[in-house]
Amino acid sequence: MARLKKYNPLRVYRKRIADRKRAKNPRIAVIGSGSWATALVKILLNNSSKINWYIRNPEMIEFIKTNHHNPKYLNYVTLDTNKLNFYSDIKTIVEESDVLFFAIPSAFLKESIENKNINWEGKLVVSAIKGIVPNENLTITHYFELKQNISPNNIAVISGPCHAEEIALEKLSYLTIACPRISRIYHIAGLIRCKYVNTFVSKDIEGIEYAAILKNIIAIGAGICHGLGYGDNFQAVYVSNAIREMKRFLDDLKRSNRQIDSSAYLGDLLVTSYSQFSRNRTLGTMIGKGYSVQTAILEMNMIAEGYFASKCIFEMKKKMRIETPIIDAVYKILYQNKPAAEIIEALTKEMH
Amino acid sequence: MARLKKYNPLRVYRKRIADRKRAKNPRIAVIGSGSWATALVKILLNNSSKINWYIRNPEMIEFIKTNHHNPKYLNYVTLDTNKLNFYSDIKTIVEESDVLFFAIPSAFLKESIENKNINWEGKLVVSAIKGIVPNENLTITHYFELKQNISPNNIAVISGPCHAEEIALEKLSYLTIACPRISRIYHIAGLIRCKYVNTFVSKDIEGIEYAAILKNIIAIGAGICHGLGYGDNFQAVYVSNAIREMKRFLDDLKRSNRQIDSSAYLGDLLVTSYSQFSRNRTLGTMIGKGYSVQTAILEMNMIAEGYFASKCIFEMKKKMRIETPIIDAVYKILYQNKPAAEIIEALTKEMH
Repeated sequence: MARLKKYNPLRVYRKRIADRKRAKNPRIAVIGSGSWATALVKILLNNSSKINWYIRNPEMIEFIKTNHHNPKYLNYVTLDTNKLNFYSDIKTIVEESDVLFFAIPSAFLKESIENKNINWEGKLVVSAIKGIVPNENLTITHYFELKQNISPNNIAVISGPCHAEEIALEKLSYLTIACPRISRIYHIAGLIRCKYVNTFVSKDIEGIEYAAILKNIIAIGAGICHGLGYGDNFQAVYVSNAIREMKRFLDDLKRSNRQIDSSAYLGDLLVTSYSQFSRNRTLGTMIGKGYSVQTAILEMNMIAEGYFASKCIFEMKKKMRIETPIIDAVYKILYQNKPAAEIIEALTKEMH
Repeated sequence: MARLKKYNPLRVYRKRIADRKRAKNPRIAVIGSGSWATALVKILLNNSSKINWYIRNPEMIEFIKTNHHNPKYLNYVTLDTNKLNFYSDIKTIVEESDVLFFAIPSAFLKESIENKNINWEGKLVVSAIKGIVPNENLTITHYFELKQNISPNNIAVISGPCHAEEIALEKLSYLTIACPRISRIYHIAGLIRCKYVNTFVSKDIEGIEYAAILKNIIAIGAGICHGLGYGDNFQAVYVSNAIREMKRFLDDLKRSNRQIDSSAYLGDLLVTSYSQFSRNRTLGTMIGKGYSVQTAILEMNMIAEGYFASKCIFEMKKKMRIETPIIDAVYKILYQNKPAAEIIEALTKEMH
């Protein structure tokens, strides 16, 4: 039987002081070593004297400690290693941090944290992952809520039109942080804001997370059209249709007074659909140019989140009473082996 | 004193037959010789056995007759001169046509048609001009209505995300034709539709015309940002803000159930803001890179409609009770000689 601790006013007082101090000065962690994780570290180093950084591979940690840059991603960004604590054990970094930015591919999330006996109590989990947990068919925030038993109020997402490559170059970017309990994230927004990053906050965590997932599917479609030879005139019509399809989907999911034309929705869609940097668009372009889906996936060294998302979103939308011609077309090409040229030609008839 | 014509049933019958035939087979004219006029001729030749074409310069007419292509614009497009009647007199072409597509720079509209004693009765004027009549500060359709006394029901606009260069390459494009009396334009839409052009019709002639004007101003701003070194991340936020600014402006002008995210509004904005072909964006880029406004205008061989539009729209919006940070910023740079870097930096603070 657990013995109750004797009431000790000094201990209670000290704890309260420590809690307050922590709320003002939370211990920040970044989980992941890809380009977006590296960009987040760069951003957060502007306002924090220490960042905890989880990298699975100890050799990569050694490399960064010696060379002060990431060997594989954004390797032209110099990192101040004096301000970095490295971890290759996930349980320890969670224990020793208060706010955890997850920026690993969604496909690796489960194996990174499951069966590790992690205690999430009092932690704020911020997902910078834009995708679906494969097999579970859950969004990242739903996965944390349902499978890791984290309260929704302790889960946030960070999103917005933001190529890591431009963060590396310190080009002005805008990020949106969303959490159902908005008071949880004002301070986080402040930690991220810097000379080249502006921040917005939002309560629409579900809408923003799904927007980020949908835009990857849409970008694959944009790439397919581009690969097939459709031009800028069509691309403009495609994107105009896509943002309305996204609005229908999000409204069906959860009505809200969201402004679909703001940067976390339309902006994010634009930067992905129009950019050369986008992996999802590149995957689509290869398929449009005639590569088989499997070959295109193998040829790319990075994971295109939209590929997994397409399947999950298609399953979801079956239960909805909305028209989603773009989601349907991408699914048919990726998973039903349908010829891209025919499917896209049929899609052009549904534009309005 | 005019003598009343004697009633002649045969004459009345013949006229009725001729009118019906004309309604089904209107005589089509294109006014102008630039790239958009040439693209329109190419499109219209798909469905018409004869097109009347007004080109001011008789030498250019001779060149096209001999060489079967336009010497200056889209010169890789072969034109079937057997199906073309050329005119260098505006009064005659109007007399001998029923539907007139105007595709000349807005700055030349007045001198082309004023004091020419033109009879517009029974004509349908379709404006493919995206701009403002300088000095008059009138849109093209208002100019035709107020200064040429044409009934609004006989005025239409044709718009949409459509680079002439892509029409030349037969890349799939979508055009919107708008007229307050929508029954007037179904047939016109049919004449334009072809293998590589789809058409929509709309009643929102005012909204669509102003959208096409505003997008040129916005594209100048996008170019300025690009020239100053802002990247894709910011461009996405800029365009997201711009479409909401456009919506505020159009709603203030005339409330309607227009879908701002459809191709005649958002699509048109996207193709202009993101494209290398756009003259307005190029003008902006030069200014952003440090050229003075006057030098940038001189250096360009084509007219950037947004330059004139900026002044007129800024005057209009003064009487409105809406925020238009982008319109204001572009105006200040173009007309008040304010430093672009400072104005755009201030603008970045107003993005949301």
